Amino acid sequence: MSQAVTSGAKVSLTGIKPTGEPHLGNLVGAIRPALTLTEAYDSVYFIADYHALTSLRDPKELRQYTRSVAATWLAAGLDPKRTTFYVQSDVPEIFELNWALSCMTAKGLMNRAHAYKAARDKNVEAGEDPDAGVNMGLYNYPILMAVDILIMESDVVPVGRDQLQHVEYAADIAGSFNHVYGKNYTFKVPEAIVPDESRGQTLPGLDGRKMSKSYDNTIPLFLPEKKLLKLVRRIPTDSTPVEEPKDPSTSAPFRILEQFASADHAHVVEDTRKRLEAGGMGWGELKNVLFEVLNTEIAPLRERYDALMEPGSELDTVLAEGAQKARDRAGRVLSQVREAIGLTGVAR
Amino acid sequence: MSQAVTSGAKVSLTGIKPTGEPHLGNLVGAIRPALTLTEAYDSVYFIADYHALTSLRDPKELRQYTRSVAATWLAAGLDPKRTTFYVQSDVPEIFELNWALSCMTAKGLMNRAHAYKAARDKNVEAGEDPDAGVNMGLYNYPILMAVDILIMESDVVPVGRDQLQHVEYAADIAGSFNHVYGKNYTFKVPEAIVPDESRGQTLPGLDGRKMSKSYDNTIPLFLPEKKLLKLVRRIPTDSTPVEEPKDPSTSAPFRILEQFASADHAHVVEDTRKRLEAGGMGWGELKNVLFEVLNTEIAPLRERYDALMEPGSELDTVLAEGAQKARDRAGRVLSQVREAIGLTGVAR
Repeated sequence: MSQAVTSGAKVSLTGIKPTGEPHLGNLVGAIRPALTLTEAYDSVYFIADYHALTSLRDPKELRQYTRSVAATWLAAGLDPKRTTFYVQSDVPEIFELNWALSCMTAKGLMNRAHAYKAARDKNVEAGEDPDAGVNMGLYNYPILMAVDILIMESDVVPVGRDQLQHVEYAADIAGSFNHVYGKNYTFKVPEAIVPDESRGQTLPGLDGRKMSKSYDNTIPLFLPEKKLLKLVRRIPTDSTPVEEPKDPSTSAPFRILEQFASADHAHVVEDTRKRLEAGGMGWGELKNVLFEVLNTEIAPLRERYDALMEPGSELDTVLAEGAQKARDRAGRVLSQVREAIGLTGVAR
Repeated sequence: MSQAVTSGAKVSLTGIKPTGEPHLGNLVGAIRPALTLTEAYDSVYFIADYHALTSLRDPKELRQYTRSVAATWLAAGLDPKRTTFYVQSDVPEIFELNWALSCMTAKGLMNRAHAYKAARDKNVEAGEDPDAGVNMGLYNYPILMAVDILIMESDVVPVGRDQLQHVEYAADIAGSFNHVYGKNYTFKVPEAIVPDESRGQTLPGLDGRKMSKSYDNTIPLFLPEKKLLKLVRRIPTDSTPVEEPKDPSTSAPFRILEQFASADHAHVVEDTRKRLEAGGMGWGELKNVLFEVLNTEIAPLRERYDALMEPGSELDTVLAEGAQKARDRAGRVLSQVREAIGLTGVAR
């Protein structure tokens, strides 16, 4: 068993937005790769519930998604003892630093932020006021994201290409602060890591395209067994007869099987490939194999997830302990920043 | 002696920006009128140090001004037992609510804020980028000001005419929140009180214009006695001879005397007025009278101020107790808002 990575190691930060029920594609494309960070880094994971507030206005959904995403990552193997795992809104230090750093952030930087520019362009195209429907949470969120990164003294932030700007902004804002107050306190300047997308960690969806909520082609991660079977059986296939040879590389069920199966099921994947290529295996049988592998691999995670989602479960304790760890880290940074900018701080 | 005004009474809020050493005009025009609020309101006073950060980049100055302004108000008679008196940065709840409410604030509202528009107009006139030199603290500060007001459940906010917009914005932002989450929590909608400026609480400065830092015509409040005498002696006067009658209403030293003197010195003011009008009193003698009245009235305040400014004085305890009172009030509001918007809040 590997050791916990703690002091001395570089810090990695992963943000998780609670915006819906997790699906198989999230597990393969995001959760599993992110969990490998614990091997090399002092790894920090947080659920960005206050980011979700820029668009999510339903209190029940926000609460449900936050608990659900926390339970998902724990079920998928996140070890709260070896990592720092918390809900953003449980760390008030973040929001105080957010104000302090907004005073060091040029407005021009925010004008060029991708998400804001997209909203603006859409409005202009529709002949609306450029800022129609834009709230200050959306406009400000690159600052909050910079704070998430800087307050944990992150060295590296794994992001997709479309998220690179956030890490650049964090570095930029850190630089502005360091320029003025560097004699008193210096923020660590973070770097982005962009995972190699050619490594094929993208899971196909029910229709063969990338599995994604926006394509409505997902397999929800914690479906009950019967519903999972039903969904797998409904994956569209062509009418090639059972006895004919089949090309596994163009079959959605096979590609899901291939991408999802762990090493334990590598032999099943290879057997299935050969049988498809040889002819004699029908789509129905392939789907049964897929269901068996999915269900066998997911069952223990689902059991753990369901237990964590029970009211009064261990989840609350895990998040409370995580919040304390995060507040200790954030508090160390914030108190140095407060001293550096000249707050009196008589009360703390 | 009047009773402390507490539960059941309406709440008044006064914000104090720590941006320089206080002068006589501040005492007469701002501090004394604000302290009369304690008679009718559950009165709340805070030092807006995090607002000052939008423009103040010198840690020593920020720390010094914050302590100095706190000591000034206490010396002027603010009773921390009867009021809630705190430094803004000692109340982290404010900054968390600031994020939550920024998600409910339309960007268009900020585009129309006076301070931002002034900066923008100046840039445009100078042929610069409209947002040149504008930081996100300046752009966001109407939201923070709304939070200052709303988190204390303020009923009334006494402001000058140029500050009316801040209270309107607070009401507007409260309205946006109430519209979405009103079933769960409703912010109290605040009202502005604009003091009647015709009541003549404006102190003239050394040159006869309104005493103001921007005119460089102030009498610093806590000058040591000798320096105060020197400054009063340097007030410019004309060359009317001693024996000639003089018009008190056009004499800067007399007008300062008249506006500043408390009831205890009303007879001195009237005697002096008569003697000037009768002739036989020179400017030198008038200045001696002014110095005596100023010094007699200020001496006890100065003594208290100097004691509070000593390191390790009672000031720290007063502010720590005030912060706790403020955090109790702010925490009650924030926890209801958190529940209303759907945060899990396992850690608090």
